[in-house]
Amino acid sequence: MIYSTLAERIRSNKPVVLLTVIDGPNVGATLLASPNLNSLGTLGDSELDRVAARDALGELEAGRTSVRNYGPSGQVTPEDLRDTPTVRVFVESFSPPPQMIIFGAVDFTAALARVAKVLGYYVVVCDAREVFATKRRFPMADEVLVTWPEPVLTARGADLGPRDAVCILTHDPKFDVPAIQGSLATNVGYIGVMGSRKTHAKRLERLTEVGITKSKDLDRLMSPIGLDIGSRTPEETAISICAEIIGKRVGRDVPSLAKSNGPIHR
Amino acid sequence: MIYSTLAERIRSNKPVVLLTVIDGPNVGATLLASPNLNSLGTLGDSELDRVAARDALGELEAGRTSVRNYGPSGQVTPEDLRDTPTVRVFVESFSPPPQMIIFGAVDFTAALARVAKVLGYYVVVCDAREVFATKRRFPMADEVLVTWPEPVLTARGADLGPRDAVCILTHDPKFDVPAIQGSLATNVGYIGVMGSRKTHAKRLERLTEVGITKSKDLDRLMSPIGLDIGSRTPEETAISICAEIIGKRVGRDVPSLAKSNGPIHR
Repeated sequence: MIYSTLAERIRSNKPVVLLTVIDGPNVGATLLASPNLNSLGTLGDSELDRVAARDALGELEAGRTSVRNYGPSGQVTPEDLRDTPTVRVFVESFSPPPQMIIFGAVDFTAALARVAKVLGYYVVVCDAREVFATKRRFPMADEVLVTWPEPVLTARGADLGPRDAVCILTHDPKFDVPAIQGSLATNVGYIGVMGSRKTHAKRLERLTEVGITKSKDLDRLMSPIGLDIGSRTPEETAISICAEIIGKRVGRDVPSLAKSNGPIHR
Repeated sequence: MIYSTLAERIRSNKPVVLLTVIDGPNVGATLLASPNLNSLGTLGDSELDRVAARDALGELEAGRTSVRNYGPSGQVTPEDLRDTPTVRVFVESFSPPPQMIIFGAVDFTAALARVAKVLGYYVVVCDAREVFATKRRFPMADEVLVTWPEPVLTARGADLGPRDAVCILTHDPKFDVPAIQGSLATNVGYIGVMGSRKTHAKRLERLTEVGITKSKDLDRLMSPIGLDIGSRTPEETAISICAEIIGKRVGRDVPSLAKSNGPIHR
């Protein structure tokens, strides 16, 4: 039953995660978890099933396979790991990794790409300026494209969903207006746009000129990009962007710069 | 004047950052910035001086040397980089990198160490269990120590300051109580302690038993660790911890789990 369901979901390209006990009281026990569906099978303890399935769905969303350690009843914080037998669970995700498309090969791009790679994203960097958009500057990116936003979003937009992110770091209306237009036409879960509050206000005028005026569209644009945590360096900004993506994806009320006022740098 | 001040600060082991224009209208112009002191020199434009010094102090705090690009008057968001001459500034930090000591070689440790390395930390992983605390499991760490918290904090505590962090991920009172005691005796800027709200409540009882009762001490403990952004995977948790460290360091009012109620996982 578990294996036929697993095969069926893989064949239909739907995400699914298989958990197998590889060390502990029930070696070989399996549990199959899928987003928004009940789990199948058991690892031998209902509380362990609940906790491990929750964690496994997180791993699945990141498109990652891993080994997790629990107490016999799903303790993730055992008071003393030395005195408690550990259940080791192999968590096998069947899911393409989420994508992050970064428009703009700027100072912030490399730091964002590095942090996104830690989070398991397939990272695409895109800029029309071929001296900046090079694999040598962005060795950590999965792809570096020298082109404009339209062809990228036309070719790949249909594949973008809630797990995916577009980050527009260009600061250039010739580049970021079409990037925003193209991203709004997709179901991508996160659209972040870098720039000061003043830049964003000017950008909104340009968006109005090209007919982007609906509040449901404008509400999707996270600009200024990232959380209001006082980031200064590109790396700190990358952390604030990724923290915003995580929080928004799970519906947390996070302190986005886009939802606040006042200076970004204090 | 600039170089004698630079030499003086380096000799006295105080942090200082030297900015030099390497491309643009004033190649060779220099500016020297130090935390809490006025800058010396100029890059040729007072607004550029202000913005570049601010960014350079961020780089200095991360102990990093880099090249930054600005518009002629310090624009970080030039409307069109193609039509604006760029000022390239070489930012040379004279400062040891900040340290992060992670107690506990657990599932979350490798992810936290990876993100901390992106932020420029010198990362030390410490656990008394030699099968877990290995360089093979934590190749990204600068040091992996098989020992207890006391000797580490006794030997290194005096060097820990506001830029540094201690993250206690052990979940084991035999390990985390001495790690907390030792950390509270230092001036380290951040002390994060992993664990559920229930675990933290029990831990507070144990801390009381060993005489840690002052609210100014207990207020320094960030537990549960990290921001309330709904993190599930170790990598997402690492982002939430680092976002908390950044926000606390600059005094931002960030949504720490330690300052809220309610479930960590929803």
